Amino acid sequence: MLTTSTDRMSEKIAKFSEFGALEGGGITRLSLSEAALAARAEFKRRAEALGMTIETDDVANIYATYPGTEPGLPRIVMGSHLDSVRSGGNYDGVYGVLSSLEVAETIITSGIKLRHPLTVMVWTNEEGARFEPAMMCSGIVLNKFTKEKMCGVVETGGTVTFGEALAASGWVGDEKNRLNANDYCAYFEPHIEQGPVLEDEGLDIGIVGGVVGMVNYDIILEGMACHAGTFPQNKRKDALKAASKIILDLWDKIGALAPDIVFTTGEITCHPNVHTIVPDRVKFSLDSRHKDMDVIAQVVQIIENLPKEVFGCKLSYEEHWGRTTIEFNDQMLGFVENSVNGLGYSYKRMYSGAGHDAQYVSEMLPAVMFFIPSKDGLSHTVVEYSSPEQCWHGANVLLNAVVEADGTL
Amino acid sequence: MLTTSTDRMSEKIAKFSEFGALEGGGITRLSLSEAALAARAEFKRRAEALGMTIETDDVANIYATYPGTEPGLPRIVMGSHLDSVRSGGNYDGVYGVLSSLEVAETIITSGIKLRHPLTVMVWTNEEGARFEPAMMCSGIVLNKFTKEKMCGVVETGGTVTFGEALAASGWVGDEKNRLNANDYCAYFEPHIEQGPVLEDEGLDIGIVGGVVGMVNYDIILEGMACHAGTFPQNKRKDALKAASKIILDLWDKIGALAPDIVFTTGEITCHPNVHTIVPDRVKFSLDSRHKDMDVIAQVVQIIENLPKEVFGCKLSYEEHWGRTTIEFNDQMLGFVENSVNGLGYSYKRMYSGAGHDAQYVSEMLPAVMFFIPSKDGLSHTVVEYSSPEQCWHGANVLLNAVVEADGTL
Repeated sequence: MLTTSTDRMSEKIAKFSEFGALEGGGITRLSLSEAALAARAEFKRRAEALGMTIETDDVANIYATYPGTEPGLPRIVMGSHLDSVRSGGNYDGVYGVLSSLEVAETIITSGIKLRHPLTVMVWTNEEGARFEPAMMCSGIVLNKFTKEKMCGVVETGGTVTFGEALAASGWVGDEKNRLNANDYCAYFEPHIEQGPVLEDEGLDIGIVGGVVGMVNYDIILEGMACHAGTFPQNKRKDALKAASKIILDLWDKIGALAPDIVFTTGEITCHPNVHTIVPDRVKFSLDSRHKDMDVIAQVVQIIENLPKEVFGCKLSYEEHWGRTTIEFNDQMLGFVENSVNGLGYSYKRMYSGAGHDAQYVSEMLPAVMFFIPSKDGLSHTVVEYSSPEQCWHGANVLLNAVVEADGTL
Repeated sequence: MLTTSTDRMSEKIAKFSEFGALEGGGITRLSLSEAALAARAEFKRRAEALGMTIETDDVANIYATYPGTEPGLPRIVMGSHLDSVRSGGNYDGVYGVLSSLEVAETIITSGIKLRHPLTVMVWTNEEGARFEPAMMCSGIVLNKFTKEKMCGVVETGGTVTFGEALAASGWVGDEKNRLNANDYCAYFEPHIEQGPVLEDEGLDIGIVGGVVGMVNYDIILEGMACHAGTFPQNKRKDALKAASKIILDLWDKIGALAPDIVFTTGEITCHPNVHTIVPDRVKFSLDSRHKDMDVIAQVVQIIENLPKEVFGCKLSYEEHWGRTTIEFNDQMLGFVENSVNGLGYSYKRMYSGAGHDAQYVSEMLPAVMFFIPSKDGLSHTVVEYSSPEQCWHGANVLLNAVVEADGTL
């Protein structure tokens, strides 16, 4: 089996960790920020040095392409994103871009001839940390959102719109350069797991069968505000007591649905949130994800069957959004699996609990993802880490999968 | 028995409801705000029209005094505060000042001769809504806080210090005018109940035996932040799940201590409070109050015996402050009880769950409070209400209690 260069892979990670670096480790590299533009420039410099041609589309997605040997064949594309969350790490997103670049560098510098053109891609604004929502530009390319509406999105905590940041970036190209089903035939996206499963089970690679479906609700309890000192306990309608009860009930009920279901109350707001006043309104989020949409339907049923009144407080809920489970392409999964087996790496099939650009791309092109382990399962934090060896393993998996895809498609 | 004027009492409430009036009812009359200064000016105008002498002390507490017939006797003082919380009502505090003023007006205009000088008092900044803490200026007079430190307190949500607001108010007088044990012999403070007990039991008056003791804690749960989609449920250390459990446990345990105990979690903060991230740190308040300090000691024991770990999260707590139960003066309670009985009003002895200036004053002078009913037990809200008849009853109780005190002391 072919292999990439472990030194070059590590050097790439180290170099890109400089863009937006934070004191003490990690990065803040919000989409189209100065740090993100510097990372793009470095990507472009390196791709052009390899003889690749740079194109960008109208939302600044970057396509660096090396020609194939058979004219007229569509491109094989691999990539991810270079932007991070605030106080993020050096692997989420950027690992997918840099392992793809390492694969391209290996192929080009080793003189491996591919029939198809090979493209390394950088998606604009995957994280949504500066401009909501996440996966904005794959969403625009796949018609999930209109470009017009997205250009009006104002940055979180600031005044610049996405459209203004885009115009000022110097990276806007032609709409006709957007990823499309005519000019491309396959999409690979390597990524870190962002969870502890591979590490816990001592596995090298997670082959990602799809992205799990999810639902997202707000649950609201409305009671009555009163004075903490003067109002008898048994006459209170305490919205926080009621919320605490429902949060624990949801743990019991949703937790019983399936061993691998996940659900999270990450956000809670309490009104008036004063220590001497009994809360009259508490709102909390509920995010639940599972690959089996029947299980998700049961989550919805649990929420719909919540009592209308809890400790005298009125319960209501609002559905925010949901997504159906995405299944990646079987043939593409086969390329990855063959590569992993050929390299002798250990692996398991798993689903991604997090959203990725690949989930939108999969509606247009045969697509697949695979994961390398995340230390302690931690991601979106400055301590995010995958070892040089793990990063190199992933690049090797991508290399051989791409080579087989090139021979087969 | 003597009675005050129901029409004059109602007119006073109506007039003072104009200062800081909100569209749709209620007031915002933060301490030393323009609205509060206008209310002070109206108070001064009315007191002077009755022939009372106005003095202020160095923290702008107001003393309006009518002379007694026997030279050299100390003053009997009655009063409360004119400031309100944000979006407060027309009764909390101001009722105590206006019923005192109505009593003075009745005595003066009816030609009732008192041996002692009679003072109506207005405390500066009882609510602490603009400048924390509450009961600031009775606290300064009773040496709970230093004036120097309090003058440095910056207004909530603004930049003005208490010292600056004081200097600009035009109400600063001499420190020697402060309430003191030589020049005064008795302190009465009428107030609205701010709870539903009197209304529920159909009673006219609550004779307040004291102010309940209390403790105030923050309880902190520290878990681990991780991704809502990728981190298996059974490996999580969810600080909000742990907090929900402890909040409900505290309801069970503290609630079992005594039928009339109150306890409140009014404030909760969740970090990072993002719907896709499992919370790593949740902090919530616990306020508990009871007249029996042995019961409060049991609350403290419950908190100290909380488990050190809950669902994998570390539990810790911080005590913020507490106060011991204050008992009002028996003789003063007798004056109020005799007055209520003489007037034929129904009543009960009760404790105040809320803090009031009287609790500090009680350390220096024989002091007492009594309550009139609050509609639905609601206070610190624009719908706060006591009927004209209830307000008048309270003024009558005060009038006869003052007359008996004057004859007895």
